[in-house]
Amino acid sequence: MRDEFRADLDTVSQMLVEMAEGVRAALRQATRALLTADRQAAESVIAGDAGIDALYRQVEERVCDLLARQAPVASDLRAMITALHVAADLERMGDLADHVAKTALRRHPSPAVPAELRPVFTDMAGIADRMAEKIASVLARPDATVAAELDSDDDAMDELHKGLFGVLLGEDWPYGVETAIDATLLGRFYERFADHAVNSGEHVVYLITGEPVTPA
Amino acid sequence: MRDEFRADLDTVSQMLVEMAEGVRAALRQATRALLTADRQAAESVIAGDAGIDALYRQVEERVCDLLARQAPVASDLRAMITALHVAADLERMGDLADHVAKTALRRHPSPAVPAELRPVFTDMAGIADRMAEKIASVLARPDATVAAELDSDDDAMDELHKGLFGVLLGEDWPYGVETAIDATLLGRFYERFADHAVNSGEHVVYLITGEPVTPA
Repeated sequence: MRDEFRADLDTVSQMLVEMAEGVRAALRQATRALLTADRQAAESVIAGDAGIDALYRQVEERVCDLLARQAPVASDLRAMITALHVAADLERMGDLADHVAKTALRRHPSPAVPAELRPVFTDMAGIADRMAEKIASVLARPDATVAAELDSDDDAMDELHKGLFGVLLGEDWPYGVETAIDATLLGRFYERFADHAVNSGEHVVYLITGEPVTPA
Repeated sequence: MRDEFRADLDTVSQMLVEMAEGVRAALRQATRALLTADRQAAESVIAGDAGIDALYRQVEERVCDLLARQAPVASDLRAMITALHVAADLERMGDLADHVAKTALRRHPSPAVPAELRPVFTDMAGIADRMAEKIASVLARPDATVAAELDSDDDAMDELHKGLFGVLLGEDWPYGVETAIDATLLGRFYERFADHAVNSGEHVVYLITGEPVTPA
């Protein structure tokens, strides 16, 4: 029973790692679509979101099945609840990659992001990518130190996000309201992606240390 | 054991109803803060978010405790998982009310929303309020018909959201980029509030009918 539970738990962990790698790849591709007006990349991300959603449902089903069959308690139960939380965060991160891809597609063949904003979005995407990589890593091998690094990554993301508004609100912003709206939403998508990564990390820390997560 | 489980489940339902009523009140007050530049209302929403977060943690603890003590299966287990999902959606709806209040406060004593946009935000807030009311209602007394109405409410929200961009992108938009950015984010907050209400409703429907929820 106990060994069976361990094996099932490993399967759930592997599914979460697969989800984390999937949303990481999705956001990388969505960013390429955004910065190079790559239509195929955008369409691929949008088509791929159903696969992430399907994984999410599989994690849920597997967890519910485990709860029903094995009635875990203590740290095993905590691991199950954590898996549900992390899966929900990852599913949402997939949606946000999808939103970035859709924004790129809506403006195609024009770039959705003008030259002045390419550096800030490149940097935001870089941090988001690093965060998704860390989530995949701590899910495969729980490590509270790596999970805690997500907080400082998120601080860096927030700084970039503030900097973005600085550019948009600068007196010499030449692109008008439509481009500002797109950039505002895109900034929000990357920033929320990072927030969900932080949440996932906190849930993994909770699993390791027993320290409860404080909702933002 | 069975009666005890029922009583515990009722307690969880009551906590969720309290959360739903709390986020509904929070968004009403945040909207008043936004539309009448009411500083006190904004501050009250921001201070109150901790109470909604605390309720969320209480629901989680209660559900984990129930899973550990009672090891529910079948529809009882489903009710537990649904409670976790709905609590997470409601917690996020509270955050979104908080974001609206913070936007109002950031512009205070100026109004964050210019006269041209007051009607659309009044309507969006009205729909959001109706949706939160329905969530509280179906949590108190599960009803798949009421839960399904949330979809058409959400369609109406999406139409208003599109209309908002129509105003912002109109050739005669006189307010510049900063006000457009605020309006873009505010529109997103109301629209996401509605999305979470739809999600909650779908989870309640799942509880009633056994039809699984499709992630957006």
